[in-house]
Amino acid sequence: MATDMSALAFLGTNKVGVVNKEIPSAGPCDVVVRTTTSMICPTDVHTVSGVFAIPEGRTLGHESVGVVHEIGDQVTGFREGDRVAVCAITPCGKCDYCQRGHSAQCNGMLGGYKFTAQKEGALAEYFHVSDADFNLVHVPDALSDEQALYASDVLTTGLAGAEAAQVPPGGTLVIVGQGAVGLCATLSARLLGAGLVITVATKADRARMSEKFGADVVLDPRHGDPVDQVKDIVGRDGVDAAIEAVGSRSTFETCVRVTNAMGTIVNLGYHGEGTTAPLTVPVIPFGLGMSDKTIRAVLCPGGRERMLRLFRLLRNGRVDPTPMTTHRFGFDDVERAYKMMSNKSDGIIKPLVTYAW
Amino acid sequence: MATDMSALAFLGTNKVGVVNKEIPSAGPCDVVVRTTTSMICPTDVHTVSGVFAIPEGRTLGHESVGVVHEIGDQVTGFREGDRVAVCAITPCGKCDYCQRGHSAQCNGMLGGYKFTAQKEGALAEYFHVSDADFNLVHVPDALSDEQALYASDVLTTGLAGAEAAQVPPGGTLVIVGQGAVGLCATLSARLLGAGLVITVATKADRARMSEKFGADVVLDPRHGDPVDQVKDIVGRDGVDAAIEAVGSRSTFETCVRVTNAMGTIVNLGYHGEGTTAPLTVPVIPFGLGMSDKTIRAVLCPGGRERMLRLFRLLRNGRVDPTPMTTHRFGFDDVERAYKMMSNKSDGIIKPLVTYAW
Amino acid sequence: MATDMSALAFLGTNKVGVVNKEIPSAGPCDVVVRTTTSMICPTDVHTVSGVFAIPEGRTLGHESVGVVHEIGDQVTGFREGDRVAVCAITPCGKCDYCQRGHSAQCNGMLGGYKFTAQKEGALAEYFHVSDADFNLVHVPDALSDEQALYASDVLTTGLAGAEAAQVPPGGTLVIVGQGAVGLCATLSARLLGAGLVITVATKADRARMSEKFGADVVLDPRHGDPVDQVKDIVGRDGVDAAIEAVGSRSTFETCVRVTNAMGTIVNLGYHGEGTTAPLTVPVIPFGLGMSDKTIRAVLCPGGRERMLRLFRLLRNGRVDPTPMTTHRFGFDDVERAYKMMSNKSDGIIKPLVTYAW
Amino acid sequence: MATDMSALAFLGTNKVGVVNKEIPSAGPCDVVVRTTTSMICPTDVHTVSGVFAIPEGRTLGHESVGVVHEIGDQVTGFREGDRVAVCAITPCGKCDYCQRGHSAQCNGMLGGYKFTAQKEGALAEYFHVSDADFNLVHVPDALSDEQALYASDVLTTGLAGAEAAQVPPGGTLVIVGQGAVGLCATLSARLLGAGLVITVATKADRARMSEKFGADVVLDPRHGDPVDQVKDIVGRDGVDAAIEAVGSRSTFETCVRVTNAMGTIVNLGYHGEGTTAPLTVPVIPFGLGMSDKTIRAVLCPGGRERMLRLFRLLRNGRVDPTPMTTHRFGFDDVERAYKMMSNKSDGIIKPLVTYAW
Repeated sequence: MATDMSALAFLGTNKVGVVNKEIPSAGPCDVVVRTTTSMICPTDVHTVSGVFAIPEGRTLGHESVGVVHEIGDQVTGFREGDRVAVCAITPCGKCDYCQRGHSAQCNGMLGGYKFTAQKEGALAEYFHVSDADFNLVHVPDALSDEQALYASDVLTTGLAGAEAAQVPPGGTLVIVGQGAVGLCATLSARLLGAGLVITVATKADRARMSEKFGADVVLDPRHGDPVDQVKDIVGRDGVDAAIEAVGSRSTFETCVRVTNAMGTIVNLGYHGEGTTAPLTVPVIPFGLGMSDKTIRAVLCPGGRERMLRLFRLLRNGRVDPTPMTTHRFGFDDVERAYKMMSNKSDGIIKPLVTYAW
Repeated sequence: MATDMSALAFLGTNKVGVVNKEIPSAGPCDVVVRTTTSMICPTDVHTVSGVFAIPEGRTLGHESVGVVHEIGDQVTGFREGDRVAVCAITPCGKCDYCQRGHSAQCNGMLGGYKFTAQKEGALAEYFHVSDADFNLVHVPDALSDEQALYASDVLTTGLAGAEAAQVPPGGTLVIVGQGAVGLCATLSARLLGAGLVITVATKADRARMSEKFGADVVLDPRHGDPVDQVKDIVGRDGVDAAIEAVGSRSTFETCVRVTNAMGTIVNLGYHGEGTTAPLTVPVIPFGLGMSDKTIRAVLCPGGRERMLRLFRLLRNGRVDPTPMTTHRFGFDDVERAYKMMSNKSDGIIKPLVTYAW
Repeated sequence: MATDMSALAFLGTNKVGVVNKEIPSAGPCDVVVRTTTSMICPTDVHTVSGVFAIPEGRTLGHESVGVVHEIGDQVTGFREGDRVAVCAITPCGKCDYCQRGHSAQCNGMLGGYKFTAQKEGALAEYFHVSDADFNLVHVPDALSDEQALYASDVLTTGLAGAEAAQVPPGGTLVIVGQGAVGLCATLSARLLGAGLVITVATKADRARMSEKFGADVVLDPRHGDPVDQVKDIVGRDGVDAAIEAVGSRSTFETCVRVTNAMGTIVNLGYHGEGTTAPLTVPVIPFGLGMSDKTIRAVLCPGGRERMLRLFRLLRNGRVDPTPMTTHRFGFDDVERAYKMMSNKSDGIIKPLVTYAW
Repeated sequence: MATDMSALAFLGTNKVGVVNKEIPSAGPCDVVVRTTTSMICPTDVHTVSGVFAIPEGRTLGHESVGVVHEIGDQVTGFREGDRVAVCAITPCGKCDYCQRGHSAQCNGMLGGYKFTAQKEGALAEYFHVSDADFNLVHVPDALSDEQALYASDVLTTGLAGAEAAQVPPGGTLVIVGQGAVGLCATLSARLLGAGLVITVATKADRARMSEKFGADVVLDPRHGDPVDQVKDIVGRDGVDAAIEAVGSRSTFETCVRVTNAMGTIVNLGYHGEGTTAPLTVPVIPFGLGMSDKTIRAVLCPGGRERMLRLFRLLRNGRVDPTPMTTHRFGFDDVERAYKMMSNKSDGIIKPLVTYAW
């Protein structure tokens, strides 16, 4: 039986490569999964650009599904060979944050994000899942690996954004940015009953995809300040909620400005790239601090139970994120896949990586 | 019967004076109240300093109680001579914001704040209450004018802050600033079951008052960064919620930094004085935009129903804000009272102004 | 100008007829509407059967739209000739219940239901709308009278049921009963993101309609206890929520039994017909009183703001209840329409009644 | 080292006795605690009366604190000798119910209640705690064993009731029954800011205790229907919430009748004694199924995080349940203590049982 495997690893700032490693082993509460399919995430690219301090050689990736390879003796819900998935966020389920329902912040700020950031990632032939009875989930036969992968990261994140927006049934919202997470926020805003979904997209292909994913109106920021464009549609008060899905200071400000005085601004974008300058909240649209606006910074919670509900949504045709799978690769070609994600070339959104077994 | 009255009016930037005016008259849905007692608010001072554009001659004030003098023919709940109070916020009860429960933002941003900002204020021998069946409330015999006045502004605002903080029973919070609103937030945080209430106060007399109002610990910012002081007490993760009750950019940042990754920051402070620079949200303590932190900008809702509940709290001894009444004046001395508020002299917190009838 | 009009009136238990009446006039805060289209509701039939004590001659109906005929001088948002609708529930917007957001219970139990129960109904050539600035809403050009009528009663009620069910995204629910309100609950459960919607319908045509409206599975209670049938699908724990849309004691019990131990039971059905026996909660499925189950009795809230959101949902194609319009009549034929509703003949669900002007 | 211990065991319907048993041992995720202090609960008495099917010889009890005796090798948060407590509810932290925050219903109906019901209880010299990193909590030096014990059951249950009642600040509520849980609901209703707390108590000593615990008014049901008595105080609409803390069908009905049409009924009482007849909901006060009333059946959630907050409340003087400790025993006298609880003799509320080491 093989004891080593291939993995896509961080090899220093802006360098990655496939390396050989030992197959991980499972502690008593853990599971090791043999990977069948993975996706690559912009967060992998952020990580490789040096945003988080991680050791050289650390395996990348947090979007992988597969079959159970090894099971810790305290794990009760799984058997070898079971087809399984896991959320990109893998909380412990026990700390104060988890017990209060904020499992994304397991043990403290962003602590639920463990793959790559705190331990070996999942872009490898095998990967390790901690606290498996909390985190691991069976993939129903009716779902493809590809569908399950969407549930593990971008869809659950987009949905978390739409949930946090708390738009009442028939209410209005704007989603700024139509990358993979923004598109999933669009899908999810429709799923949860928003009455008007306006999106802001800069590229023509994303604009088309945005419409396909449920946007009623797609705005092009080159045609004028999106805030003005939105208010031309909904009136001067603005919308009930705005979701920031870009990760820039200016789009964050746009979200504060475009919402009405009972509105919610949800931040999904990652604001760590290139600067640690603060986010800025313009005071006039913030009512000099006395509007009833709410700003939420959101990372999706982890755990099996949420994954099960996402699987049900996928299986019963409520949402279909698969049009975002723009490219497909074998794992032997994963470096090229990574490079395309890094360069954002050929309109790539999500590349699907399959493993030959 | 007299047709004119005295009122404390705005006479140009940083100028006020008692002027003679006609007694207001009530439209069909309104009531005119003959004032028996008023208080002066720092917001009056902000207004006189030129923050809002209001016409010269506009009556100041929004904290007054009295007896019903004239009643519009559509008003059903009141009779002449009834002892009544009204919240500083007087929403219409009908617009979309009011119907969604955000009456402070009646008809749009901060629109529930009408006295002085949109119409004649209440620091006068008579004042006009719009939408009386929504806004006016009977004062029970068991309550003094002074108690009722607290319910009309600072107490309801402090309580709105504590409610928005959503601290779970036994949770922890910090209140930065112990002016009148900050002190009422302290009272209210205790009222709602916080397990540890830490306040930050710069003056010794406010620190003493803060303890009296329920603070478990009062921090002096001159003894080091309050964030560090708080974390020395509760641990490195910080507190469940922080309430900004100063109105400065630095204390707002303190609140973002001092909260844990599931924490809530409530802004009660007024950020319009002297600058329209944006509020700043430091990105590291905001989890690069992915912490589960929530920031709420809060203005208390108006309406009779809430006032009734505040009256019950006062009557049944749940809260006692009256130690904040540091000074007492007759209305003939109201200019001096205003000047003391303006200069913050003699440790003044709330001056009580009584009318001789 | 005409001063009298035709109206469908209650003429004693189980008797109705078209009578001649004076056209109503508007008080200062009210509006009188000239009716263009109405629908008849099973509640009209309940009323005529003697459930509520109403005077003979009282006009029936609470589902009508039309154009503004007369406006009170305190009403600000409308002009003569405006095309308008109003919810079946017409709260005052000012009482404690309204101020707390429970406008269906305006001034006390069920008090928001005023048409027919407390004042003249709306199945007439003209009808009176109280507190028009709170209740009346403009109908957008893009909406038909028929669409607007659905928003005024069955759709808003079904949606209130789905909202109260608080099913998490991707969660499961059962809706027992697929009459007009049950069908709208089905539409609404899909709208709000349920992952699995199971309905229980006794008639074949309703079962087909239920599928059309979004049910994933439609159960026939003649094929066995619906609780067993549901548990065969979702497992022994049951579903996240159940909505009672029949109005019988046994279906209420079914809802308690079919929900899991964190589940919500929503009652939409009317339990006043033929008996005042109590509803019964079986103790074993209620965890001997210690399950975490929640039971909610729901009547839709009224008000313009909610209607606006419903209109947005209809206009933007989120929901389409119009397949329920099974029959169409002129107002001169309204007695026949009423009789068909009363007899539930010819598979009638909602009859549309148009007025010749 | 001793390998056996004494335990108070169920010896058949209505029979208990101290028996000798092996000291339990800890699995990898568990801890064994050497008991220092226990309390006895009415639930123990219910259990012995034959309500749950448990094997003869099963150790009773679920309110015990002590020091860590043995630690499983996967447990990270504790060391031998640590002073610890645990909630009466000991959920797994991993199942769907736990992940959704309903840990009292761990793995299904009432499944979080494990001591005695599913495994050996805690009225023994040693007891076993499963999923220790989720459930076990350090007792701060500042807290007595006695205080910690209150947090483990009656206080957390009473608080869960007050939380579920969702009384707005200054709102009104009634608590029917002033046994240990009812008294803790009274304490907790005050803690969370209710404006008027009315209790119903049948015994004079409980009435006195109820006042001490914060009741504004204590009603004697022998002086007339409590519903009438309450409405004499608050008006005909009734109160915002009612908590059932007796466990009888008639008091449950009282709670439905005494609440207003936006009110919440919380059931804390155990309805399994002597009958499995259904609970009954009178339809008129339930608005024929269309009031906005909510009925919640509540069992307190388990877990360390909640215990920590309860400890903070006790330590900082927010609540003091210790006046309920009416009797004290050594463990060698535990059979007598049990008998007194069983007979409710000498006004016993909570007996404290200490172990001689």
